[in-house]
Amino acid sequence: MSEQRSEISALGEFGLIDRLAEPFKIQHPDTVKGIGDDAAVIRCGDHLSLLSTDMLLEGVHFDLRYVPLQHLGYKAIAVNVSDIAAMNGKPGQVVVGLGISNRFSVEAVEELYAGIKAACQHYGVDLVGGDTTSSAVGLVLSIAVRGTVDSDKIAFRSGASANDILCVTGDLGAAYMGLQVLEREKEVFLSNPGTQPDLEKYSYLVGRQLKPEARMDIVHELEELKVVPTAMIDVSDGLASELLHIGRNSRCGVKIFEDKVPIDHQTFETAVEFKIDPITAALNGGEDYELLFTIKPADFEKLKNHADIHFIGHLHTAMDQNVMITKAGNTVALTAQGWNHFS
Amino acid sequence: MSEQRSEISALGEFGLIDRLAEPFKIQHPDTVKGIGDDAAVIRCGDHLSLLSTDMLLEGVHFDLRYVPLQHLGYKAIAVNVSDIAAMNGKPGQVVVGLGISNRFSVEAVEELYAGIKAACQHYGVDLVGGDTTSSAVGLVLSIAVRGTVDSDKIAFRSGASANDILCVTGDLGAAYMGLQVLEREKEVFLSNPGTQPDLEKYSYLVGRQLKPEARMDIVHELEELKVVPTAMIDVSDGLASELLHIGRNSRCGVKIFEDKVPIDHQTFETAVEFKIDPITAALNGGEDYELLFTIKPADFEKLKNHADIHFIGHLHTAMDQNVMITKAGNTVALTAQGWNHFS
Repeated sequence: MSEQRSEISALGEFGLIDRLAEPFKIQHPDTVKGIGDDAAVIRCGDHLSLLSTDMLLEGVHFDLRYVPLQHLGYKAIAVNVSDIAAMNGKPGQVVVGLGISNRFSVEAVEELYAGIKAACQHYGVDLVGGDTTSSAVGLVLSIAVRGTVDSDKIAFRSGASANDILCVTGDLGAAYMGLQVLEREKEVFLSNPGTQPDLEKYSYLVGRQLKPEARMDIVHELEELKVVPTAMIDVSDGLASELLHIGRNSRCGVKIFEDKVPIDHQTFETAVEFKIDPITAALNGGEDYELLFTIKPADFEKLKNHADIHFIGHLHTAMDQNVMITKAGNTVALTAQGWNHFS
Repeated sequence: MSEQRSEISALGEFGLIDRLAEPFKIQHPDTVKGIGDDAAVIRCGDHLSLLSTDMLLEGVHFDLRYVPLQHLGYKAIAVNVSDIAAMNGKPGQVVVGLGISNRFSVEAVEELYAGIKAACQHYGVDLVGGDTTSSAVGLVLSIAVRGTVDSDKIAFRSGASANDILCVTGDLGAAYMGLQVLEREKEVFLSNPGTQPDLEKYSYLVGRQLKPEARMDIVHELEELKVVPTAMIDVSDGLASELLHIGRNSRCGVKIFEDKVPIDHQTFETAVEFKIDPITAALNGGEDYELLFTIKPADFEKLKNHADIHFIGHLHTAMDQNVMITKAGNTVALTAQGWNHFS
């Protein structure tokens, strides 16, 4: 082992991945795209095959004191399907790696799998294999998903051009505010175990945190409307981080308008209650699993009346000039705060 | 959560998987084979695509006090490639899920990836994606591998018939004895940190434990010799366990001869030193990653002079009569002891 010791936290997740991925060159003739998008792309007859993986670790990604196992199983599948959706693809199969300690009963693992099954049925995905093993410590869940996409429909992060319109589905920041609510209730419960949490008022936010959905409905609707996004990514680390990924990969700058960013009223009110700026929750919250994509201006007509697609800005040629125009008309730089699990 | 509490250890790994997998039905038109073989099989143009996953957890599958990170990375890829080999397929791409705590430096993670890279180069596999995250506790490594196989070459566990010949590659029990040696040296070192372990005498065994190879060479040679195994599996849990898998899936009984089971002289001598019956190490040791396969009797001529393929017995119609004929001529029942990480 080398003498030097550099801390992972100094690099962050993306820095670490860049450094680790750097020496790997593509050698297999079927590999179209390796590291660097939501899923890898592999040639498969006249289609393209997609492959992606996500790992969920107890104590880092979830807290079993408030995450029901069934929801955890559902979410684990949904976030993987979301990576396939982000390539404009359709999911087909998943494999599940599970590490569990003796503190879990067979019935508890069945709860987890009930959630996995519900998600598989919802998304039309087959569970085709896995690896189940004991864990010396917490619960470990690692999913890999395979999907397919037609080669004329695939959406990379890198395909957008200047003047393409930035679109985002649903609303943002709700899952993040749901997490804040759950964390606060946990603290209340830990200091006074007699209390019953009142989550009624925050039901939308808590639902977005505990049971996110992949936006496969949007992938199907874009197909029906004959719109192929020029670039696409799912919003897992926060809108700002994903905007910068699309900008950098497409060699453009991004410009969005604060008043166009969709925020649900419950998200807004709860953010105010928590003394968080609602736009900050939307830009940096993460775990929304909405789709952020770009379209050619000519396709705007086809989507403009879609109730759940919002047009938040556009790309421009000035790469690295990534800005938001605030409601007051000021220009502020977009920076990715996103999630850094290592800090 | 349900009231009942059943212990996972009472079911064991295979029992748990059977119980969890039971409610999952195949629904996607491209899925050819789901849970129950070394890899899932998915239609992909005129080829078949293979998908498998393996999880390695610190404290369960490896002990970083004697497993160098580079070897761990190599092994993680090799054992996944072995699952593709076991379907008579060729590996193409891997995705790597990695959970690491702050106790690892960037340089340590680079050591791990150097091993992953060496294995990817050796097997001609591309690392195409992954998920890197912090872990609250130990090191977690989860790999998924994609491969391909021609539809007329695929080898399921279920394809063998009575009178097919049982073949196994290489030699067995070495990785298990290597683990015993490493565990003993660890104890010596922990009680007297001044000692230097003398592993020279056991170098073959330690190498088989720390740096196993997937037998892709055999897959290529079978192709050149125009032999398609009627059934195949890789020896990860021990020869006995794998024989029973092939027998049960092919609805046959298995009969092997003790004197035909290949055991290296270093395995043999070390087993005797540890007061372990060498055939027990071969039957139940596990982690050999050799290939166990069956051939039609007509193919025997093509393989009989292969230096690294051993003919250890055959299948017969009496399902569930799984026996070994000992060197003394006695008939003993084969039982799977294998690995039960949960016990």
